[in-house]
Amino acid sequence: MMMMSSLSSRGVSHTGGRGVSRGARSHRGLNQTICMSTVTRNANIGKLAAGYLFPEIARRRNEHLEANPDAKIISLGIGDTTEPIPQPIVDGMVESAKGLGTLDGYGKYGGYGAEQGQGPLRDAIAERFYSHVDTSAADIFVSDGSKCDIGRIQMMFGSGHSVSVQDPSYPAYVDTSVIIGNTGLFNDDTSQFDDIQYMACTAGNGFFPDIDSAKKSDIVFFCSPNNPTGAAATREQLTKLVAKCKADGSILIYDAAYAIYIENPDCPKTIYEIPGADEVAIETCSFSKYAGFTGLRLGWTVVPENLTFSDGSKVKTDYNRIMSTCFNGASNVAQAAGMACCSDAGYKSMLDLVAYYKENALILKKCFEELGFEVHGGTDAPYVWVGFPGKNSWDVFAEILSGTSIVTTPGAGFGPAGEGFVRASAFGHRENILEAVDRLKDYFKK
Amino acid sequence: MMMMSSLSSRGVSHTGGRGVSRGARSHRGLNQTICMSTVTRNANIGKLAAGYLFPEIARRRNEHLEANPDAKIISLGIGDTTEPIPQPIVDGMVESAKGLGTLDGYGKYGGYGAEQGQGPLRDAIAERFYSHVDTSAADIFVSDGSKCDIGRIQMMFGSGHSVSVQDPSYPAYVDTSVIIGNTGLFNDDTSQFDDIQYMACTAGNGFFPDIDSAKKSDIVFFCSPNNPTGAAATREQLTKLVAKCKADGSILIYDAAYAIYIENPDCPKTIYEIPGADEVAIETCSFSKYAGFTGLRLGWTVVPENLTFSDGSKVKTDYNRIMSTCFNGASNVAQAAGMACCSDAGYKSMLDLVAYYKENALILKKCFEELGFEVHGGTDAPYVWVGFPGKNSWDVFAEILSGTSIVTTPGAGFGPAGEGFVRASAFGHRENILEAVDRLKDYFKK
Repeated sequence: MMMMSSLSSRGVSHTGGRGVSRGARSHRGLNQTICMSTVTRNANIGKLAAGYLFPEIARRRNEHLEANPDAKIISLGIGDTTEPIPQPIVDGMVESAKGLGTLDGYGKYGGYGAEQGQGPLRDAIAERFYSHVDTSAADIFVSDGSKCDIGRIQMMFGSGHSVSVQDPSYPAYVDTSVIIGNTGLFNDDTSQFDDIQYMACTAGNGFFPDIDSAKKSDIVFFCSPNNPTGAAATREQLTKLVAKCKADGSILIYDAAYAIYIENPDCPKTIYEIPGADEVAIETCSFSKYAGFTGLRLGWTVVPENLTFSDGSKVKTDYNRIMSTCFNGASNVAQAAGMACCSDAGYKSMLDLVAYYKENALILKKCFEELGFEVHGGTDAPYVWVGFPGKNSWDVFAEILSGTSIVTTPGAGFGPAGEGFVRASAFGHRENILEAVDRLKDYFKK
Repeated sequence: MMMMSSLSSRGVSHTGGRGVSRGARSHRGLNQTICMSTVTRNANIGKLAAGYLFPEIARRRNEHLEANPDAKIISLGIGDTTEPIPQPIVDGMVESAKGLGTLDGYGKYGGYGAEQGQGPLRDAIAERFYSHVDTSAADIFVSDGSKCDIGRIQMMFGSGHSVSVQDPSYPAYVDTSVIIGNTGLFNDDTSQFDDIQYMACTAGNGFFPDIDSAKKSDIVFFCSPNNPTGAAATREQLTKLVAKCKADGSILIYDAAYAIYIENPDCPKTIYEIPGADEVAIETCSFSKYAGFTGLRLGWTVVPENLTFSDGSKVKTDYNRIMSTCFNGASNVAQAAGMACCSDAGYKSMLDLVAYYKENALILKKCFEELGFEVHGGTDAPYVWVGFPGKNSWDVFAEILSGTSIVTTPGAGFGPAGEGFVRASAFGHRENILEAVDRLKDYFKK
């Protein structure tokens, strides 16, 4: 039997205001009871701290706006693209959208597509981004983005695996590991989840973890160019990482979502530039920060033919099963836009867009340097990582917000080793970046 | 240490031809070894039978084409839409796509959207489909489609739960339950997975399971109008289903992807027409079969505020966490198209499109009836369920394919209770439906 509980008391304990107002407008009166299921909650989700980083930042931003209604907020916070999608790419997308209203166009790509992505797009991605390495179109799975792919990768692996992440790191690696059951509880003393290895990336080690002393783990998440530190790993470092994974029998999940921002020739643009990486690494990538597709949703994941589980079975076979069972292909209009990105004109326009954001990054980097701060990143990535040694990063975030109405991201939100830093995102209109620089100089030069 | 294995022998055992050719083109020679990780394969994925239903059908179709290169195949197989997206909806989508190339348009919906969907679209869905019930926009999560939502729902529940499905049923319910670890092994004797309850839906029980004798389970999947049987459950039946779930403390996953096809006034168009359903049911729905969005990807899931786990915590809170962590919102262009679907002009065009497919269904239904077969469905759903008592459904499928070059779907592919039936899909161009009718009459009247 379902258990009964009072709606009013339940509303208060679980939803605050909303529960109460819902109770009032419900066909049940405030004092009537509603039924509870007897289905147990997933204990792994219970382990997650209540807030995700960016909603918390949004809350604080709104608080600031309420207190200062005239404040003109500039966001260097969440890494969200601001510039329009370049015209050659929009043209491809518009043509595809129009085509869906015609028999011919609908017949071509209107119905269910392959869950792995349209063949010509897989070919085009292989040709555009992997022609210098041994990665074939058959190993490329087109998707609605990297964050979603990370969720599906976790579903494929399932529980019972040990995990390592860089610290600081993009929150989704840890959160999805928690959800799938590959971590212990959150530990308030360490600000970390138990039973997951955080590999510190600090200025002291050049933001590359101390691989030699790292414990073996089944799954290793690694992001380069890194979000949030902006550090791009060199060929030498990645060779070491691949060798470590191979020696340990680990599978590397390599997040290359910012690869196009790399300008240092010593930094590979794909993990498959490292010999043998096709035996250890899955690579996720995305058009989000390449062509402004954060809202359009298009990415891809490479699962090499040679990557196997301990029983010798192919990881690719299981990933294909997950994609076929839990996914139905990226939106056909987004895939058309992706095709346009890979064309010569589209690719050039994408590089121009990236160059724009990179110049923003340089402007921010110089500003913080001139102000005498410790500055990292910003040359091979759209993120600038600014050090405030000895300070609490949420305090620095709050000080910058109240003093300049600029939103940054506190480094501690990416993991304990991010303490003492804030991340400034280079995604923004140029005039806002320049205005931010003026405000920062005004404030910190006082 | 990674284990070594010979590429050539491994290629043969796991990939057939492809592994060998890959070995040949690899920078490693055929006799060189590659490394295997020590990461164990997810045993749950290992439980899945090798093939998904529709790829197997595609294989047989291709086999038929190879043997009969001149055959003009007509597909009544996979339920995939064929008609162009109606113009008022295309217009909305094209305008949005063009807008993404402008500062204004990009500023509005270009960047990251809410993972739960754009506010105005959630409002529009609530207004268009739920204004007659007590479902609010805040309980609606916009997504890239029902199949994907079912995967995310499974991720939310996690393992350790008992599951019931209708038999026959859409394969994704069972397959995702297997993947998340809520079933036993596949049992060759029963053609079912162990430890999951298959509730038989037969002509004998009017395609509504014998609820009274069903065992209690945590999660109950139910699809109405049903894919594949075409049966729509009545208010009386659904009242019984909700009462059973409430009595058992179960959570009902109600798949309403074909609700717009219902014409019987005794059949609710949403589960929330049943009083108390908001305490037991999650409802998934989709624009795929409403407006031809199978390739565009847009759907939604309702998780009511009042639905709770056994500890009293809200299911909605956890589903929101899954959506925020493993998803990044449906494509903004698809959401714009969804907004157009909910406009008066768009909605009318959608109803016209549905009427077209419904007339197809009627044509097919009459054809099979005239041929003297036992026919179900086809009036409240785009599927006709045709009985061939005593016959093996794969044999019937093969006979129809070889005799008429028409692809159907064998009922057994949806579960053991589908044995003796084939499903004919009403999605198709009218001329193909009429041609199919001619061929079927020619063949079966012989």
